[in-house]
Amino acid sequence: MGKDGTYGEIKNFALTTDLYQIIMAAAYYSSPYHRERKTIGIFEMFVRKLPKNRSFVVVAGVEQVIQYVLNLRYDDEQIAYLQSLEVFKDVNKEFFDYLRRFKFNGSLWSVPEGTVLFPNEPILRIEAPIIEAQILETCILSIMNFQSMIATKAARIVSAASHKPVVEFGSRRAHGPQAGVLAARGAFIGGCVGTSNLLAGKSFGIPVFGTMAHSFILSHDNELEALKEFNNMFPTGFLLVDTYDTMKAVTKLLRSGIRPFGIRLDSGDLYTLSTEIRKLLDSAGCKDTKIMVSGDLNEQSISKLLTSGAPIDCFGVGTELSTSRDDPTMNGIYKLVAVKVLNPDKDSGKYEIIYKSKTSVGKGTYPGPKQVCRFIEDNVLEKDYLILENEKAPDKSILLLKKYVEDGNKLLEMPSIFETQNYSSKQLELLPAALISLDVEPILFPVILSQKIKSLGHPHDPS
Amino acid sequence: MGKDGTYGEIKNFALTTDLYQIIMAAAYYSSPYHRERKTIGIFEMFVRKLPKNRSFVVVAGVEQVIQYVLNLRYDDEQIAYLQSLEVFKDVNKEFFDYLRRFKFNGSLWSVPEGTVLFPNEPILRIEAPIIEAQILETCILSIMNFQSMIATKAARIVSAASHKPVVEFGSRRAHGPQAGVLAARGAFIGGCVGTSNLLAGKSFGIPVFGTMAHSFILSHDNELEALKEFNNMFPTGFLLVDTYDTMKAVTKLLRSGIRPFGIRLDSGDLYTLSTEIRKLLDSAGCKDTKIMVSGDLNEQSISKLLTSGAPIDCFGVGTELSTSRDDPTMNGIYKLVAVKVLNPDKDSGKYEIIYKSKTSVGKGTYPGPKQVCRFIEDNVLEKDYLILENEKAPDKSILLLKKYVEDGNKLLEMPSIFETQNYSSKQLELLPAALISLDVEPILFPVILSQKIKSLGHPHDPS
Repeated sequence: MGKDGTYGEIKNFALTTDLYQIIMAAAYYSSPYHRERKTIGIFEMFVRKLPKNRSFVVVAGVEQVIQYVLNLRYDDEQIAYLQSLEVFKDVNKEFFDYLRRFKFNGSLWSVPEGTVLFPNEPILRIEAPIIEAQILETCILSIMNFQSMIATKAARIVSAASHKPVVEFGSRRAHGPQAGVLAARGAFIGGCVGTSNLLAGKSFGIPVFGTMAHSFILSHDNELEALKEFNNMFPTGFLLVDTYDTMKAVTKLLRSGIRPFGIRLDSGDLYTLSTEIRKLLDSAGCKDTKIMVSGDLNEQSISKLLTSGAPIDCFGVGTELSTSRDDPTMNGIYKLVAVKVLNPDKDSGKYEIIYKSKTSVGKGTYPGPKQVCRFIEDNVLEKDYLILENEKAPDKSILLLKKYVEDGNKLLEMPSIFETQNYSSKQLELLPAALISLDVEPILFPVILSQKIKSLGHPHDPS
Repeated sequence: MGKDGTYGEIKNFALTTDLYQIIMAAAYYSSPYHRERKTIGIFEMFVRKLPKNRSFVVVAGVEQVIQYVLNLRYDDEQIAYLQSLEVFKDVNKEFFDYLRRFKFNGSLWSVPEGTVLFPNEPILRIEAPIIEAQILETCILSIMNFQSMIATKAARIVSAASHKPVVEFGSRRAHGPQAGVLAARGAFIGGCVGTSNLLAGKSFGIPVFGTMAHSFILSHDNELEALKEFNNMFPTGFLLVDTYDTMKAVTKLLRSGIRPFGIRLDSGDLYTLSTEIRKLLDSAGCKDTKIMVSGDLNEQSISKLLTSGAPIDCFGVGTELSTSRDDPTMNGIYKLVAVKVLNPDKDSGKYEIIYKSKTSVGKGTYPGPKQVCRFIEDNVLEKDYLILENEKAPDKSILLLKKYVEDGNKLLEMPSIFETQNYSSKQLELLPAALISLDVEPILFPVILSQKIKSLGHPHDPS
């Protein structure tokens, strides 16, 4: 939503949030308790339980979150809408004046995009006046949950493809036009070589790929004429050969003297077809012609094709990737882990920190702002150790959370999408093989809590 | 994507599409075959196979599709991006000048939003110069597939809730911020009473609902004080009582003399808790206090709660609804069913129609522009009968596709979202009970092809 309706930059998402955030903002604003204490909230985003079949998550979406946080404003039209709601009829006008001046003045820590994380580890942390920190919840979750879920799915698919090129083709099945753009970004971070989505190309600099659809063939009288015409115009294009009869189409194509740059198969038994077509191509001297396959592929079907020796050079993956079809939900949550308050009985002007945790059955949380200390041995992730941010980190561990925003100002520049993909790929190389294997059940990676965190609270069943 | 970043209006999605649409557009533009014939393409959108467990689809998204189609333009920045791509390096500049002047001049037929449809039935049809019709594919699919899938999921959930109010709460788990807004719209059309999403409220006039989060309770020293403070400010709000110990919280609340408007439960055994809390409320004289439950609910868990007699007044449904978690994919497709061409050998200036169909294995299509004729007996859907649009409709049948856009101009005004919801609810009432029952496997509703359609082609395995 830049001015031209692009989704690459996320500039003003003031109302793409839940009503209760604004209700709570109004309640915090008028609360005698919080007014006296000038409460600062510290929230952490983390995942309690990963999507099915997953043993890790590839974090993505941080760049969009930072854009959102730094650009969040409320304009007159948005405020007029809020004021028109029955629920706000008795809320003091001062609160809406506050919204009109709203700007994020807090700080944001996050792991870098592309980092591999595990359940219960903080992905990002916000520390800000309680209203500012509260109001960000819905949008942060919707940005991070989706892109991270897709980056994770892509990592599994790319791994199953033994790092043969995988292109993201799923815009038409993504959950609306913007989801297509964001899915392309997540998929690239997770290891895809590119996307078919043009806005993702323009906004993020992701390489774009495209072939042709059956409609182009159908629109002509004659399949071969359509393929020839297309090939003349786009000699490095992939020709789609399965509109009528795949083997006949390839045979006619080769007999006509065309030496296609690439062939795309989108239906049928892809193992048999790719094998037969490879033979035809090779015997016609087209050893360099690439074979791309597509059509409801996922990590399992790709792995099966390659294990059986199908001579496939690259994959187009749509629906299953852009919807994370086997589990379309990452249940990331954003929880208050501490407040900082002025003691109303003292006039010291000093904030004191109070750790917070829910103890709801099955939904408990660990209190306190945390840091992830990672141990790597012989190029393999060994374990993570969670400490409170003010605890001393153990020797030889790498600290994952970095401060990106301080007092409303950006501290760190974001890496390019290529740097992020490269970092993510290195993170994935460190992963113990079983964690990305399709053949084993999800594995719980060792995430160890410091004694101090444990001593602060005992949530029921933090699973 | 209005100027202020709203997603309610969809104005310019020129690049939220697949690269191959523009590649094909360039190929059509330069094609001697199509230049001579001035080819008009007729495309239909339909679903081959419904998402798992579904026997029908509630169509939604037509209003956004029409906005998209009528407002699609290419600006200089977008065209400059396209021209920068390697694949277009040899494409004539004339084509990009064409894009700069691009405007949809064709016609669009659709079933009204809220219509209940079945596999292989046309949802909408575009007839336009082939480039115009082609270029719309990706975005039409991404808009219609998602909203229709959510409307369908909502219809199942609302039916399971025996029409007790269901509010859509899923923005944080939807696939990005825009998906949250569009999910809210689909859910409302499918029968939800409202959403938590403010932009959906502002853009579409959907009623918005909100309660409070655990963070509000946690931010205070004392749970009861937090609840009191909130209740003072929002006396018709729902109080969230499961931050620590649900029964204790309600007991304290009632002892303090508060008579809550509503109570919200978000964790634990919802049957036991709602039953116990109802008793507490009734014995404290709070017979009017409503109980709302939330927390990973879906049609099965809601049905189970109500069947077992849980005294629940309303439901908040998030993740499972806004991601259609049991199957997050509607495989709607957009296929060329006919072209109209000028015969280059005659100079009659008259178009002739040529029917088109794919015969790919497992992915065949039925040719020709079609109409759905519906038969209703005693207020129950009896069968649908598909004819070619120029065939005579059988007596007593209702024709479902209407012409919304003619030669680039809007013909029909869209109904309000309330009218659409009402129409959808009446459509769902006509559905044979087994088709919406959770207890039976998906059922194939009788959709009968006219002899003429059958005679035109025999796609392999149109399943």
